[in-house]
Amino acid sequence: MTIAIILFPQFETLDVFGPVELFGRLQTHYTMQFISLQGGIISNHHGVHVQTESLNFVSDKLDILLIPGGIGTRTEIHNNRFIKQLTELARKSKFVLSVCTGSALLAKTGLLQHRTATTNKRAFNWVRSQAADISWVPTARWIADGKWYTSAGVSAGMDMCLGFIQDQLGRETALRVANEIEYSWHEDANPSCGTMN
Amino acid sequence: MTIAIILFPQFETLDVFGPVELFGRLQTHYTMQFISLQGGIISNHHGVHVQTESLNFVSDKLDILLIPGGIGTRTEIHNNRFIKQLTELARKSKFVLSVCTGSALLAKTGLLQHRTATTNKRAFNWVRSQAADISWVPTARWIADGKWYTSAGVSAGMDMCLGFIQDQLGRETALRVANEIEYSWHEDANPSCGTMN
Repeated sequence: MTIAIILFPQFETLDVFGPVELFGRLQTHYTMQFISLQGGIISNHHGVHVQTESLNFVSDKLDILLIPGGIGTRTEIHNNRFIKQLTELARKSKFVLSVCTGSALLAKTGLLQHRTATTNKRAFNWVRSQAADISWVPTARWIADGKWYTSAGVSAGMDMCLGFIQDQLGRETALRVANEIEYSWHEDANPSCGTMN
Repeated sequence: MTIAIILFPQFETLDVFGPVELFGRLQTHYTMQFISLQGGIISNHHGVHVQTESLNFVSDKLDILLIPGGIGTRTEIHNNRFIKQLTELARKSKFVLSVCTGSALLAKTGLLQHRTATTNKRAFNWVRSQAADISWVPTARWIADGKWYTSAGVSAGMDMCLGFIQDQLGRETALRVANEIEYSWHEDANPSCGTMN
């Protein structure tokens, strides 16, 4: 499966590279492709400069779309061209995974309507204000609702991706990958309410 | 303080970007600079392509050097030019932090002689074989010995960096940063032997 990771200026570093580390360890299953609206180098406030391909190079049969968060979401949410392209990508993806405030961008596409989702607790009110017709769960570490996976802040994206890997390839594989990188996986997607997915 | 992060082909994704996420949240204290032997785009097996500056652009007054691990260390350890430059950089840095098998490269410089260090448990014998005159601690999550910080595998690098931040700026700051990214910090550097640093 191909995972397209959509970058924009001021993306959050670990929202992107935590998941990349996990999926990158399952190279027989997943291939990563970094994309952006116009392609080229995309930078963030941590001094990271990543080479991306333009959206035109994304396959029509997209498997997985990963949307990171970051302070840049506050700008992109008003970028109509970005949201329009994101909507098309999300619609044609088999699975869509958002980390942190990436869920605000996803909410803005309208595709999460009547779905259950979560986001960064520290930006909860701002994200919720983007779409009132979504059932936002403030306590969850991540939520899976059909093809839509949304996670809480930054490192919760890694827990979500391990949850996704578990759903796709089984718990043993998810645990093996977590163990390989000496990562303590928070296996419980919604600690205070029991697992919802 | 400037943190120079030295990249090489087939670096491990999270070894680099876990620390970058943490230090990036303390922008009044730390600035990141990505460097490599020749500059330009450095790529890895996860499909990540990062823009770097050549070593010639590194300041003479280097504060912190971060050395990631990854499968590429198996090649770089035989790259005399790389090891020579790394030795110079490590010598002039106030602090040197290595993640995972990055410690093999650091050991190869000879600068860790008679020091205590750790590395990825899964590559322990290979790393130890690079330098027998180092006291390698297989159980540690990270070790601080003077200006030298070494960590176990991948996400242990984040725990080490939080330990470094604690040493520099206090426990409260380290906990705040971990909390901001919803990361469960393994505060105990050496769980089975008590804290050594």
